Amino acid sequence: MPVLLLTSEEVAENARIEDVIPAVEDAFRAYDQGTAQMPAKSYIDLSQYNGDFRSMPAYLAADEWDAAGIKWVNVHPDNPTDHGLPTVMGTMIYSDPETARPLAIMDGTVLTRKRTGAAAAIATDYLAVNDATTLGIVGAGVQSYSQVEAIAEVRPIQEITVSDHDQAQVAEFIEYFDDRFDIREGEIQDAASCDVLSTVTPVREPIISRDDVNDHTHINAIGADAEGKQELETPLTLDAKLVIDDHSQTTHSGEINVPYSSGSLTDDDIYGELGEIVTGNRAGREADDTVTVFDSTGLAIQDVAAAHVTYQTACQNDSGSEFDLLGVN
Amino acid sequence: MPVLLLTSEEVAENARIEDVIPAVEDAFRAYDQGTAQMPAKSYIDLSQYNGDFRSMPAYLAADEWDAAGIKWVNVHPDNPTDHGLPTVMGTMIYSDPETARPLAIMDGTVLTRKRTGAAAAIATDYLAVNDATTLGIVGAGVQSYSQVEAIAEVRPIQEITVSDHDQAQVAEFIEYFDDRFDIREGEIQDAASCDVLSTVTPVREPIISRDDVNDHTHINAIGADAEGKQELETPLTLDAKLVIDDHSQTTHSGEINVPYSSGSLTDDDIYGELGEIVTGNRAGREADDTVTVFDSTGLAIQDVAAAHVTYQTACQNDSGSEFDLLGVN
Repeated sequence: MPVLLLTSEEVAENARIEDVIPAVEDAFRAYDQGTAQMPAKSYIDLSQYNGDFRSMPAYLAADEWDAAGIKWVNVHPDNPTDHGLPTVMGTMIYSDPETARPLAIMDGTVLTRKRTGAAAAIATDYLAVNDATTLGIVGAGVQSYSQVEAIAEVRPIQEITVSDHDQAQVAEFIEYFDDRFDIREGEIQDAASCDVLSTVTPVREPIISRDDVNDHTHINAIGADAEGKQELETPLTLDAKLVIDDHSQTTHSGEINVPYSSGSLTDDDIYGELGEIVTGNRAGREADDTVTVFDSTGLAIQDVAAAHVTYQTACQNDSGSEFDLLGVN
Repeated sequence: MPVLLLTSEEVAENARIEDVIPAVEDAFRAYDQGTAQMPAKSYIDLSQYNGDFRSMPAYLAADEWDAAGIKWVNVHPDNPTDHGLPTVMGTMIYSDPETARPLAIMDGTVLTRKRTGAAAAIATDYLAVNDATTLGIVGAGVQSYSQVEAIAEVRPIQEITVSDHDQAQVAEFIEYFDDRFDIREGEIQDAASCDVLSTVTPVREPIISRDDVNDHTHINAIGADAEGKQELETPLTLDAKLVIDDHSQTTHSGEINVPYSSGSLTDDDIYGELGEIVTGNRAGREADDTVTVFDSTGLAIQDVAAAHVTYQTACQNDSGSEFDLLGVN
């Protein structure tokens, strides 16, 4: 039986955000319920090329479905300037858990954006105020598009304020969403004072302070994905109800890794994991005047969940190319 | 730039054993010299399906080349009877370390057989007597074919004795090699007393004793790949010069895992790792009347090395299918 090959364009078509969000929510539920397996992300560090490889295998059993797979992904910051290639490229192998037959091999780069947007949407759904209509975006790169697409699925977003020092990126971003939202460029403070804020930058010096945000702002802190990166000033995070995706990943390389390493933020400052909120083991938003922060690092179970619905939809749409890689029945 | 897809047949054609052996030898050398990275194999155990997934990422820098990749492979023993599928299926992503661009995605099942044969050949080259002309094979399954192909590259093998309780497998094996070797069926003792012996069975009760083998026999113990499996009686292994591929893998799931767990075989009984012998940090065979044992579990660096030469040869032969999975330049 052949494996289904899905290009980046085909993943973009078939990973419908309205399907990816509930699948990723199922994954966080399974993780909290103990029906997921996610071995630690393993790294191969290639300092001679200023890059690394990460392998992210996972299995999860939701109530209605289960899925397994692995994403092989890299971070090579010199790629754009030295090789005309993206910094990050991912390849996903999606497998049937019962037989281990590879069902699909798909681009993992677009998939990563979709599942990252989905996690932000889930956190926003449980943590933002119910009538959130304004969304701030700090950092207008490729990851920010799926933030908008996903968050607009869970809240009636009308106004978007986008902030980035790259004027061309801002213009492109505004043009892309101009027909669907009241969208404008703004300072960081303008974006940060919205009902919902997603920060999607690679900064190592925090750029958002407690004064920048509103008393009820929900923040999706997406950008920090390595030791030393931090987007929010520590007093802001300490003042907020802080929700993380996974303790070992966030303390190692997420938004809180810097203050956690120095001891200025401890386990006592972490309210809980997103999975606990999804299962109802912990409450989401409880008051209208609380700042909430979701520290997102990106979990392998999110990739597997997103691959699951992408594969299903691609099969329904007769999308992709079949290829007999393994030569088995 | 597209990725090259290589089917199992194309891997079989392009993974020429005479190329795979020196590449895998380079990998063992790099491993001992500290220029390889091999994160621990990570497992996803699916007891509900009586199976597991293993992810095996690696990077290695040989003197003349470097390579990176990951093999995603499973063991599902019920597959043949329940689903008409192989117990083991592997998929290999082979990537350029400098940019992390995936160069090839190939069947990893045939690749596994080739690199396993190559490791046995390397061990045989350093540990068997120089004039070894007889080869015993215990277990006539798919893995045993590459044992013969590879070992015949390093020693002037003329006679082969094959032993297996499955008469059909034995007949098929003999027919396959009949025109190249003086090949016959024999008892386990007949195979075990050859100059070189490869054991390739899934047994959990040892089937080879010290008395079965010759005083100079070199044994490649290939079959044990999980806790509880053991092919050689412990006194045989204790009496031999014992070489392993990797300490953590062999003590966890290799030929020595059972006596190592019980304490009847300790680190003092291990002579060294194959990489140490390849680099010359330890001697190979030193006397004509020593039994030698190579405990092979299979390392991720072997897969990456085999993928490297397979990709090179496929490119030279214009073999395989190009596919634009990631949609990058």
